[in-house]
Order: sequence, then C-alpha cells, then structure tokens
Amino acid sequence: MKKFINDPYDVVDEMVEGFVDVHKRYVRKLDAARVLVRADAPVKNKVGIVSGGGSGHKPAFIGFIGQGMLDAVAVGEIFTSPPPLACFEAAKAVSGGKGVLFLLGNYAGDVMNFQLAADMARAEGIQVEQAISTDDVASAPKEEVSKRRGVVGSFLGWKTAGAKAASGGSLQECKAAVEKVNRSTRTIGVALSPCTVPAKGTPTFTLAEDEMEYGVGHHGEAGTAKIKMMTADAIAEKVVTEVIGDLPFRAGDEVALMINGLGGTPHIELYICYRKVRQILDAKGIKIGLSYVGEFFTGLEMAGFSVTLTKLDQELKGLLSAPADTPYYRI
Amino acid sequence: MKKFINDPYDVVDEMVEGFVDVHKRYVRKLDAARVLVRADAPVKNKVGIVSGGGSGHKPAFIGFIGQGMLDAVAVGEIFTSPPPLACFEAAKAVSGGKGVLFLLGNYAGDVMNFQLAADMARAEGIQVEQAISTDDVASAPKEEVSKRRGVVGSFLGWKTAGAKAASGGSLQECKAAVEKVNRSTRTIGVALSPCTVPAKGTPTFTLAEDEMEYGVGHHGEAGTAKIKMMTADAIAEKVVTEVIGDLPFRAGDEVALMINGLGGTPHIELYICYRKVRQILDAKGIKIGLSYVGEFFTGLEMAGFSVTLTKLDQELKGLLSAPADTPYYRI
Repeated sequence: MKKFINDPYDVVDEMVEGFVDVHKRYVRKLDAARVLVRADAPVKNKVGIVSGGGSGHKPAFIGFIGQGMLDAVAVGEIFTSPPPLACFEAAKAVSGGKGVLFLLGNYAGDVMNFQLAADMARAEGIQVEQAISTDDVASAPKEEVSKRRGVVGSFLGWKTAGAKAASGGSLQECKAAVEKVNRSTRTIGVALSPCTVPAKGTPTFTLAEDEMEYGVGHHGEAGTAKIKMMTADAIAEKVVTEVIGDLPFRAGDEVALMINGLGGTPHIELYICYRKVRQILDAKGIKIGLSYVGEFFTGLEMAGFSVTLTKLDQELKGLLSAPADTPYYRI
Repeated sequence: MKKFINDPYDVVDEMVEGFVDVHKRYVRKLDAARVLVRADAPVKNKVGIVSGGGSGHKPAFIGFIGQGMLDAVAVGEIFTSPPPLACFEAAKAVSGGKGVLFLLGNYAGDVMNFQLAADMARAEGIQVEQAISTDDVASAPKEEVSKRRGVVGSFLGWKTAGAKAASGGSLQECKAAVEKVNRSTRTIGVALSPCTVPAKGTPTFTLAEDEMEYGVGHHGEAGTAKIKMMTADAIAEKVVTEVIGDLPFRAGDEVALMINGLGGTPHIELYICYRKVRQILDAKGIKIGLSYVGEFFTGLEMAGFSVTLTKLDQELKGLLSAPADTPYYRI
C-alpha cells in the first residue's frame, strides 16, 4: 500500500482538519461530533438537508456542503457508516424550524444509524424524514429495486433536495423531489483496478491484466462479473445499454447523463466514454438535457467509471439547474 | 496498460469531441486546427490569453477556458506540444484588437512552436507577447531559473493574466502580471507511481514498493531522486521546506498555497498533506492568504502531489481572487 498518510487510523480526522481549513468559507465542524455543517447553519425557516456515510468518496459527501445542496454531513471512517449520534448532532445543528431531511445510500449500517438518529431527533421535537437512494442497477434485480445500493445518483438527490429546500419547499416537498429523482435514476459502474482501505492495507479485489470488474460499487466491492478488457466504445455501449433497458429509458425521453470517474481514471478517458454514450443516446432518440463528466462520487483510487441516466421532467431539470455554491460544485 | 480507450492514436480527438459537447456553453473548436476557444471569442477590446501544450493534464489546459482565464488552448497529443499552426490559429481566433498573450510552460517543443506562431501572427499584424512559466524547483538549480520547467504554477499564471485582461489591462500589463506571479511561485512534486502514455503502452518510470519519485514533473518524467517511502507528514515537510528555501519565503510573507494532485491520488491524502504544510507555514510565520487543494494539472493517472507557494502582494491576491467562470474553475 503506497499512500500519503500517517497513522491509518488518523486518516479521516486529519483529512477533516485540512478540509475545514481550506473550505472554512463554506463549512465548520461541530464540537460534539465529526459532523461538518454549512458555515451559516442553521438556516432559519429552511428544511435542513443532511447526508452522511463513509469517507473515501471525495468530493462526496463533504465537498457538496453549501447553498443549494447539503446543510450537514456526518463523516464516517473510510467506507464505514457514521455513528447514530453524529447523524443526530447533524440534524440538531441544521434544524431551522421546517424539519430535517436525511439523505442516505442504501447500506445496512447507514440505514440503521440514520433511523436511530431520526428517532432521537424526533424525541427532541425535530421533524425528520428520510430518503434512500437505490440507483445501482447491478446490485439487485429490477424486481427488488429496494435492495439496490445507492451510488453516484445520490449526488443528483442532494442537488434536487437542496434546491427544493433553498426555494422554500416543505419537508414533504423536498422528500418527494428526491424520491422522484431516485425513481428516475439508474447507474452501472465498471472498474479496471480495486482500491485499498488504509486500515486494511490490501486491495479490495483482484483483477487479471486483461479483466474488468463489471457492476462495481464505489467501495471497491467486487462487481457482478469479471469480464475481458474491451475498447472504451464497447464497454460504454455495454454499460449504457443495460442502464437504458432497466428503467427503461425510451425514445423521446430527456435525460441527465453522468459519466462519473471512480477515482483513478483520467478525465480524458471519461470524455471518450461520454462521446460514445452520447452517440448511442442520439441514435435511440434519447435527448441529453444535462450532462455531467468528472468525479462526483469516488472509491479512493479505484480506476473505473459509471454511467448514470436520470429521466428528466420540468421540475427535476429546474432543480438540477438551480444555483448551488459548494466547495466542489458551483452552478 | 488498462485504459478506457479505443485506438491510442484517437485518444485526444475523441476526448476533445466529448469535452466540447459537454462544455459547449464555454468552448467551441476551431475548424482550422485542434484549438478550443471561448464560445464568445474573440472578445473585442480585450487582450487574448492563449495557452497550449500536450494533453493528459486535465483539468489543464482546456478545463480553464472561459471568462477571466484562458481565451484559447492549442491542444497537442498526450504530453506533446501542439504544432505552430495550431498556436497561430489560436492567436487569430482570439485577437480582439488589444494583442494576444501566449502563456506556456518551459518545454523545448512548446517554446519553439509558440515562437514560430508568434512570428506568424505578427506577420499578420497581431501584436503578440509571451510569458513562460518556470516554477519547478526540482528541474534546475536556483542559479539557472530560466531552465526550470513550468508545472502547476502555470494555473496561477493563467488566472492572473486572465483577470488582468478581463479588467481591461493592456498586453504589457497582462504580461507583467503573469511574469510577476511566475517570479513569485515555486513548486516541487513527488510521485508514488508513474503513468502510461496510451501510444507507448508502458509506464514512464519504475518504482519499488517502498520508493517515491522525488522532484517529479507532470509528464511522468523521472524525478531527481528515488527516496524511501515515508509518512505524509514527513514528505510534506521535506517538500515544503525545499520550496520555502528556494525563493526564499520568509516570516511575514503572505502566500498562496496549492496542494495539487497529480492524478491518481485521492483527495483525502491531499488534505492530509495540506494539514501538515499549513502547520509548518504557521510555525514559520508565513501566512496563507489563498489555498487550493485538488487537481489543477495532472499527469494522467500518476499518483502523487505537488506543493506550490506563491508570494502574494495586493495586486496578485486581487487578480487570483477575481471572478472566473470556466468548466473546471469558478470563483
């Protein structure tokens, strides 16, 4: 394992210290727990948007704290859920009188810990709702959508909920908007290399020189199949074809298209994949209304990318296009 | 070599096609050459700011085309200078009547090709000046600063020149500003892994499991020494101590501090290194006026980071803090 770290068990605390210093215009750390909140939290009379999860996904989650996106993030260890108390402190810190919405990916630890935190917050009189992202097509069959993992589609949920909250939306309206974006979003990822969690020290899976990991998540979980290396055009076509077929997306649909780098893949390759996906969507009569290429949700240094499609309507397009001002995303 | 590419010789053209499609609000491609320019180029009565160089450095160079930064970029093959004709076409396309400033790194091919392009542009009546960045401390001794390579300090030059031009500065004023930032800037990089140029197919250098490449450039050139792995704090201290000593930076100075990821290093590690550098600067009485952590100039998937310090004065701080709106940098 070659990494620029000190004690593997200090990685997250030291990262947070650096991050808060660089981005103090946007964020501050709570004293009570490892939670980062908007510098101006709580924002009065606005629904508080809270997320959280394991570390190692930069720019997610903390890079998206700010106006029009997240109000708070509970920061776990690498690929590890934050404790319930941290999620609870996050809720308290951003409660501005209109309730708090928890946005989480569909992982057992996150679901359990946020549920406990929701109970604690409600006991203190804070209205709390939850929305769980489940965009990863590869993680469970279509008939069991509720078992699917949440991956980079979560970013679109944060943006949507954040915009709805910023525009004065109620807790129920924010929840409805993010549930709509989740229902409309599908992702599949593929990796060329694993990643190494510092405290573990060994790669999360192994791959031969001529293999790709298909259907990978962003924790370096092994995917659904090891497949032979192929050209960018061929893998992009394979991935987007499966994504399209799942919802399904149809001719005449307008979509948001996201090509998300998983960490170690140069952007040059992401744009090559984007190019092919765009050609395929064009040929199918699916219109790209919004496009995102870059790193939004990574798994440490894992080389790979994912393709995400979200079916847009006027409301979602407007919310995704609304202003946001965060350390890693400004629009 | 495991990469998401098609024919290695099509990598740059296919990337450009994808990039322009995603970022068409900001950029368009010239028909005459592989040059990207601001969507609204030429901007009348503004100095045109042109850069260019090899590809593989994303977000540099093309990610920084837009208001307040670059007007045009001549796009070379991976790690290869763009041809003189492309640089010339770039100059013509952004000439708005106040002259054109070429900003380039100190590499033989770039220097030669931009010089030829400058001659061609002048022959057509376009006023052209050049400024060459030389911030890489490791590439030549202090007594031979003019032989040093330009690395990520170039980003600060683009920002400075772009802001000066946007504020109505003359060609000479833009050149003077970027020369000042170059004189005030020092960088050293260190790598944990090399990168692989697609058309070559083999890594640019080799490293043992317990080694780092010290003084590396962003083309995967071998650095000045192979050194043993050490903690993040130890390598951050070694790098920043050499950077501080070169200018030298002194107690009471205000600086811009940049921790630039070279491509394959997770941001979590960059913030850990930032934290240590900040502690060292604090202890020395050097004040951080501006801070940058992330990827500004990479070498494909190379794992590594660099530390850059720029001595600020009121003018430079103002220019670096002025508005910019580009695909990869907004302020």
